[in-house]
Amino acid sequence: YGKNTIKFLRLHREGKKHFVKEVEVCTHLRLTSAQEYLDGNNSLVIPTDTIKNIVLVLAKKKGIPTLEQFAIDICKHFMTTFCQVVYVKTYVQEVPWQRLHENGVPHIHSFIYVPDGIRFCEAEQCRNGPLVVFAGIKDLKLMKTTQSGFEGFFKNEHTTLPERNDRILCGELFCKWSYGEYKDFDFDCIWYTNKIRECILEAFSGPPDCGEYSPSYQKTVNSIQMLILSKVSQVQVIEVVLNNTFYNVLDMKNLGLTNDKEVLVPVEAPYGSCACTLGRKKFLEA
Amino acid sequence: YGKNTIKFLRLHREGKKHFVKEVEVCTHLRLTSAQEYLDGNNSLVIPTDTIKNIVLVLAKKKGIPTLEQFAIDICKHFMTTFCQVVYVKTYVQEVPWQRLHENGVPHIHSFIYVPDGIRFCEAEQCRNGPLVVFAGIKDLKLMKTTQSGFEGFFKNEHTTLPERNDRILCGELFCKWSYGEYKDFDFDCIWYTNKIRECILEAFSGPPDCGEYSPSYQKTVNSIQMLILSKVSQVQVIEVVLNNTFYNVLDMKNLGLTNDKEVLVPVEAPYGSCACTLGRKKFLEA
Amino acid sequence: YGKNTIKFLRLHREGKKHFVKEVEVCTHLRLTSAQEYLDGNNSLVIPTDTIKNIVLVLAKKKGIPTLEQFAIDICKHFMTTFCQVVYVKTYVQEVPWQRLHENGVPHIHSFIYVPDGIRFCEAEQCRNGPLVVFAGIKDLKLMKTTQSGFEGFFKNEHTTLPERNDRILCGELFCKWSYGEYKDFDFDCIWYTNKIRECILEAFSGPPDCGEYSPSYQKTVNSIQMLILSKVSQVQVIEVVLNNTFYNVLDMKNLGLTNDKEVLVPVEAPYGSCACTLGRKKFLEA
Amino acid sequence: YGKNTIKFLRLHREGKKHFVKEVEVCTHLRLTSAQEYLDGNNSLVIPTDTIKNIVLVLAKKKGIPTLEQFAIDICKHFMTTFCQVVYVKTYVQEVPWQRLHENGVPHIHSFIYVPDGIRFCEAEQCRNGPLVVFAGIKDLKLMKTTQSGFEGFFKNEHTTLPERNDRILCGELFCKWSYGEYKDFDFDCIWYTNKIRECILEAFSGPPDCGEYSPSYQKTVNSIQMLILSKVSQVQVIEVVLNNTFYNVLDMKNLGLTNDKEVLVPVEAPYGSCACTLGRKKFLEA
Repeated sequence: YGKNTIKFLRLHREGKKHFVKEVEVCTHLRLTSAQEYLDGNNSLVIPTDTIKNIVLVLAKKKGIPTLEQFAIDICKHFMTTFCQVVYVKTYVQEVPWQRLHENGVPHIHSFIYVPDGIRFCEAEQCRNGPLVVFAGIKDLKLMKTTQSGFEGFFKNEHTTLPERNDRILCGELFCKWSYGEYKDFDFDCIWYTNKIRECILEAFSGPPDCGEYSPSYQKTVNSIQMLILSKVSQVQVIEVVLNNTFYNVLDMKNLGLTNDKEVLVPVEAPYGSCACTLGRKKFLEA
Repeated sequence: YGKNTIKFLRLHREGKKHFVKEVEVCTHLRLTSAQEYLDGNNSLVIPTDTIKNIVLVLAKKKGIPTLEQFAIDICKHFMTTFCQVVYVKTYVQEVPWQRLHENGVPHIHSFIYVPDGIRFCEAEQCRNGPLVVFAGIKDLKLMKTTQSGFEGFFKNEHTTLPERNDRILCGELFCKWSYGEYKDFDFDCIWYTNKIRECILEAFSGPPDCGEYSPSYQKTVNSIQMLILSKVSQVQVIEVVLNNTFYNVLDMKNLGLTNDKEVLVPVEAPYGSCACTLGRKKFLEA
Repeated sequence: YGKNTIKFLRLHREGKKHFVKEVEVCTHLRLTSAQEYLDGNNSLVIPTDTIKNIVLVLAKKKGIPTLEQFAIDICKHFMTTFCQVVYVKTYVQEVPWQRLHENGVPHIHSFIYVPDGIRFCEAEQCRNGPLVVFAGIKDLKLMKTTQSGFEGFFKNEHTTLPERNDRILCGELFCKWSYGEYKDFDFDCIWYTNKIRECILEAFSGPPDCGEYSPSYQKTVNSIQMLILSKVSQVQVIEVVLNNTFYNVLDMKNLGLTNDKEVLVPVEAPYGSCACTLGRKKFLEA
Repeated sequence: YGKNTIKFLRLHREGKKHFVKEVEVCTHLRLTSAQEYLDGNNSLVIPTDTIKNIVLVLAKKKGIPTLEQFAIDICKHFMTTFCQVVYVKTYVQEVPWQRLHENGVPHIHSFIYVPDGIRFCEAEQCRNGPLVVFAGIKDLKLMKTTQSGFEGFFKNEHTTLPERNDRILCGELFCKWSYGEYKDFDFDCIWYTNKIRECILEAFSGPPDCGEYSPSYQKTVNSIQMLILSKVSQVQVIEVVLNNTFYNVLDMKNLGLTNDKEVLVPVEAPYGSCACTLGRKKFLEA
């Protein structure tokens, strides 16, 4: 049990310059006993209202140095404060405020909402177990209008899809990686120095002057994973889910026109999905 | 990988009387090899477009006798047809069309959309493993305006929640149960004869003339589970998630008024959540 | 300017029996002067926070006898209390809680959320003008699986739609009618006695044993309007919008099957829409 | 009547460089006669399927030079082709794809979805009337963490809001302006040269090093309007709607803490809204 979507803004000021972190936090606990389920005995139950208070108090006292550190602080607090807690998990998601710029000059206190991918993290711990930290990005929508195909697939009497070597690849990415057992990482440094987001964009799209051919969604997913594992040594395991939207080249023959991939109609349902989890020892599961 | 939200309507006619089943199907596969991820070799890949075709062909040929039977048919088809498939999972969700009635008379071909809880099911199978069937209901929102409280909980310096013995209990329920290994059940018969939905409503609300006191969300969750396990012998394990909306009794003192639980404001975020999975051998996890 | 989505629950008790009205209210005002826009002079501005307080105070003091009466009470309060208000409009929408029944017996304090059409109303008044009251229903989704066609339409070189005399008609209805200048109506009585909702269902679907042929969405919209105007004398003008979802009979020839309108795929985008406003003097605009 | 959310992607290639415009189009018509409503006579009705075809054919033949020009082309086509059309309105909304950049280098065929404000336009024409063109931006969310207050407002017994001279101003903007009767404008040039979007950001937030004090949402709305009218001579009338989210400074006294505007909780419902339409002759309506 726990509390979901605890939303708040943490405002930090340095002189006249303002810094904002707006987050949504979900914190879930498992207790030593289940007597509240079985007998209605609430004596060990930490109300979800108290969970909310603790999250807000930690934000006030410690701030949000990084999303990951904040999730870790929350987990540690519950584990050290409440002996009846046997498991704690905290998810933190960032509201994508970006500092406004006017003619290249950053504004000291104005921000714009730019949801081109949402950063999140997760920390979890079992009593007597390690504190494990995850991070990720979701709702990142990308499109490439060529250098994508799908050929040589398995065919039988139910196959109607034609082979294509030049199609649009468009999809929404969910990437989540594990930093393994908690160490004293500088998580924002990993994010910014190793340019994890840029890795994803680069593996998806290839070099800016020519792109790189993708023979399947699966291979694109794998390319993203391989690039991050090679560039970011702290990442232990990475899961990528690609939900793709098919763009149908409209047949305009009955309207007397030849459509040379100029007008395409997105097919939002059904949509294909492929997921893969890849670790450092080449452990693989789809 | 797989195809999500394959939406279609299966229309069945008996004379002039029409029967509709509109569903959303998600089917996911895992293959023997991962060469399409690693090498871009697609030779074993069944396109998600083919998955969609197969689902539609099965709907056409076999109809949808029950949601569960349809999910089973799909799983069986993939397991028996494609030796490269090592795992298949199919989720089927029903669009809640109900037959229209005019002055009590059922209409032969008109329907109304009534989303007071959505039925769904799931079937999954590993190669050489049993076919396991799940069913459930989601998005079922219920409220009781009294006979609910929360007292005697754990308190410390972060506790600000007062004890209450008369509050509103309002929440959205997700219930999912396992029928265990597939047997030749009549799933609609189980649903309708055992009145699973009515069990949930009854366990939530208690007798119509007086209700039944709930000392916590957890206990209400447990009551639902216990009633279904006791009434429906085919159910092996049942998971219930209750996402509750808190209704705040508005303090109107600064407006010169005494609010005797007459005006309440729903607090949609954050919201509490409690989940429990209960099986026949009293196996319990939160 | 104003306040939107003021959400609250008004609980009314008669002995042990509870009655709930949960609503969303939007109230907008226009003031005599625009000095707050031009000069930043706020001296006449009633804060939207005060608007919210007033709505809640009126709910506490007067209850919600009907949605319409509550909207009227709010408008009257603003007009009589604040001389700087030159226009007020209030929209009230009901959260569709229905009393639970167990084996036909109504429960004294338990409710279920059944969103099969949402009731709403609107009241508006200009200073020195009449108070005008509207009511309506929205998000009402209906389907008939036959007795619908579309033939004899205008054709040219861009027409690819075939003529059909047996298609599915499925759509979401929005109906809003005016009661004209406020009189002391019993609005719930009009709703329930004249069975406005049932009129809509009946005009859409026709007799339960055979239905009634609809030659176009437009004609169905008109039938709904004509039936309500003929049955409910208090209704002055009625607007109906029908947003229809097309169900495509899937061509399964390339899968070796003949699909006799058994498997149909809903096309959610783009969707057709037709709207008509009809008054008692046969005034008509599309 | 008409067709809504006609979604498609128009791909344009110059050598190896690709350009995309993905749009959603809604086109509505009114006909000379209402016989299809009254008599079910469809002979003048242009099916919404044909409307969709025409939109797609125009996209194929003429491309989408600008959103506005495309909307104009559609209106002109219906007016000149169909004498039974007495009114046509077309709305075009852009899917916010932006070209990807890798280390500052633009990618020739890869794009990212960045919904920080959605551009749209509208064109409408009555037979024998002028073609009028509108443009706008919606879903633009901005925040400033200081330089905003609200004081000196009207007070009575229902006022509980304190005066504040340092609050967060956060809101979603909808701006729509009229270019008046159609002239042969270069609409993208107006957008980019006059930097309309940048005007909105600047008027909202003030100079980057100090900001500008906003005494009310209303004044901020007016500032946006005044700046656009002064900078963009082609704009005749401009409507701005600001839906604001209140950020509540959490009272942490009962948790033993002093919260100096460090932890704030967004209140998403109810929300305030203010709207104003401003033209060149100081015509004003709220």
